[in-house]
Amino acid sequence: MATLGLIEYAEASAEVRAVYDDIMATRKTDRVNNFWKAIAFHPVTLRRTWQSVKQIMGAGALDPLIKEMIYVAVSATNQCGYCIASHTAAARKAGMTDSMFMELMAVVGMANETNRLASGYQVEIDEQFKTPVG
Amino acid sequence: MATLGLIEYAEASAEVRAVYDDIMATRKTDRVNNFWKAIAFHPVTLRRTWQSVKQIMGAGALDPLIKEMIYVAVSATNQCGYCIASHTAAARKAGMTDSMFMELMAVVGMANETNRLASGYQVEIDEQFKTPVG
Amino acid sequence: MATLGLIEYAEASAEVRAVYDDIMATRKTDRVNNFWKAIAFHPVTLRRTWQSVKQIMGAGALDPLIKEMIYVAVSATNQCGYCIASHTAAARKAGMTDSMFMELMAVVGMANETNRLASGYQVEIDEQFKTPVG
Amino acid sequence: MATLGLIEYAEASAEVRAVYDDIMATRKTDRVNNFWKAIAFHPVTLRRTWQSVKQIMGAGALDPLIKEMIYVAVSATNQCGYCIASHTAAARKAGMTDSMFMELMAVVGMANETNRLASGYQVEIDEQFKTPVG
Amino acid sequence: MATLGLIEYAEASAEVRAVYDDIMATRKTDRVNNFWKAIAFHPVTLRRTWQSVKQIMGAGALDPLIKEMIYVAVSATNQCGYCIASHTAAARKAGMTDSMFMELMAVVGMANETNRLASGYQVEIDEQFKTPVG
Amino acid sequence: MATLGLIEYAEASAEVRAVYDDIMATRKTDRVNNFWKAIAFHPVTLRRTWQSVKQIMGAGALDPLIKEMIYVAVSATNQCGYCIASHTAAARKAGMTDSMFMELMAVVGMANETNRLASGYQVEIDEQFKTPVG
Repeated sequence: MATLGLIEYAEASAEVRAVYDDIMATRKTDRVNNFWKAIAFHPVTLRRTWQSVKQIMGAGALDPLIKEMIYVAVSATNQCGYCIASHTAAARKAGMTDSMFMELMAVVGMANETNRLASGYQVEIDEQFKTPVG
Repeated sequence: MATLGLIEYAEASAEVRAVYDDIMATRKTDRVNNFWKAIAFHPVTLRRTWQSVKQIMGAGALDPLIKEMIYVAVSATNQCGYCIASHTAAARKAGMTDSMFMELMAVVGMANETNRLASGYQVEIDEQFKTPVG
Repeated sequence: MATLGLIEYAEASAEVRAVYDDIMATRKTDRVNNFWKAIAFHPVTLRRTWQSVKQIMGAGALDPLIKEMIYVAVSATNQCGYCIASHTAAARKAGMTDSMFMELMAVVGMANETNRLASGYQVEIDEQFKTPVG
Repeated sequence: MATLGLIEYAEASAEVRAVYDDIMATRKTDRVNNFWKAIAFHPVTLRRTWQSVKQIMGAGALDPLIKEMIYVAVSATNQCGYCIASHTAAARKAGMTDSMFMELMAVVGMANETNRLASGYQVEIDEQFKTPVG
Repeated sequence: MATLGLIEYAEASAEVRAVYDDIMATRKTDRVNNFWKAIAFHPVTLRRTWQSVKQIMGAGALDPLIKEMIYVAVSATNQCGYCIASHTAAARKAGMTDSMFMELMAVVGMANETNRLASGYQVEIDEQFKTPVG
Repeated sequence: MATLGLIEYAEASAEVRAVYDDIMATRKTDRVNNFWKAIAFHPVTLRRTWQSVKQIMGAGALDPLIKEMIYVAVSATNQCGYCIASHTAAARKAGMTDSMFMELMAVVGMANETNRLASGYQVEIDEQFKTPVG
């Protein structure tokens, strides 16, 4: 069970409700995930984290679907069960098909493998990768 | 320096050269990265790793550019200096702009943050995330 | 279930009981956590691990409460569910308030984020950070 | 070298300079670390990251020195060379003595060890650690 | 529950069954682990992963038992619950005794500890470790 | 450079020299690695860490060579540059051939890959892996 428990909407302060309302409106849903209910005991963290997620995950140079898939890639690499479950669901909602998910996993697996081959063999960075390209 | 050193093309066996040739042809380049030269001492690993990378990173349900960006996301999460340098270069070559790179990094950073909030607050997985959607 | 099971006090050897007794006396409790019962099949590991933990976690230049919070920070970063649960409980017992826990989590989350921004952007260490200060 | 290079104060836009100025004023220094100069190519990330760091690392339920030490603990766990160097320097500036640093490292090392013993032995969470204490 | 569910033998395509058959024949068992059933939705990944595992884990310069123990070491370091459980079982089947398991865990724990002491103290690599020995 | 610098034998206290002497005698060498010189500022950590390493890495149910290879596996997984370099050298000294090293790396790479496939596909632990076998 969550360390401090969960703050449900009915029992939330106005400050917390305002964030919950914005989450639901932004995501076009009538649910707030346990993640937000768990960190809501610290309204400053709740608001800052949500504002950051909202700013980062919206459309920009990258599509929101791509961003959700990157989130899944990081979460699988870190073995975060909660984040894998919730962001896989979010990515599906954003349009990730089974084929896309399975290719995503293949890349994540391969990257984790070659990351260790590169470090284990102590490979030096090629000269041409060392120059910044602005 | 690489643990076993690097095998340059001129000194490579026919078996290793065949892989180097395929790498250069597939990537339309006349260079082979240090990574491949370092693991070439084990031709079985060289060939298997290259075959896997070639199969996984090609076009499919996901664009090669997206795949390279996922590679960078995993490598940054794992703090693999070599892989960050080489796959950032590969992603750029595949079309990643500065804006795309910077948004990629923002997502990677945020995911790494919320992964720890989720685990640290011991958040339970929401019921609706537990059903497989095939 | 634990790989080898758990060794309860009643069934423990004198050697194992001696460690259990010291754990309970040091921690002023009548319980021994599952962690110790799980590794007790290897009395050498049990004793060495307990001696190290006892030496490290006691008062010194840092307060035991601070040490428990650092333990939680590492465990959340590593996504170790058992360790997050047990050391969060230990930190609370040592005086960690909800506010302290929530600030701890905020720092842990932020550090995990900027760790990846620093590696992903391949930031070089500033010259003035390279000199040892003894 | 940093992926995109570094933006020095002299060449920075007004928007970036405003953040640099706030960093220097808050930290009572006339230098801006490479980290900020590297991410300044994305002013949105620069401002958001700084605002978050500023909010999180200030005095609260935990002392700024404790927060810097937690930052070091996370960075050492993640093997982020840049972050270890910069936050060790920041922690020293905030008052961390050699003795405090060495005890910090001892706790970080021990936590990383027992995290793996707990997962490797597949230890189940004790019942009494499962109840949230709000 | 697995993201896409599990593909049981009875419902599997001929392509997937061929891999399942090879797994069972190679491992001399009449069961296929959930891992394979979960990734079988992507036959390309299923076949490639199995072929790689089969090639890597067989006898060579290292004994299959040693290889399974290394797998457990990596999985415990990464906190992968599924992999710890399945590869501990595989290592036992390959001949790992309780004593071997417990010594394995001791090494894994210690390595995780000193990895962080080395990075946290920012230890430079000794000159004599820098030369490749081919 | 190491955070606190390095303590050379000539300038070491009797307490530190005693540990250095034991390291050199046990390892049959006239050198002490930088790792020990870096943590020697905290004699308690130096002695405890060395005693633990000495106890764990000696012959037992597992051969010292196998133990060194497990150390390399963990270090490559964690991307600890110092530890990869020093323990690869130690494993070689203990008898690791190039072939053994390359097979070790192949297993480490594969384990890191399947660890993420298992977590990313959210594979549930098979029932038969859940029973402890003592």
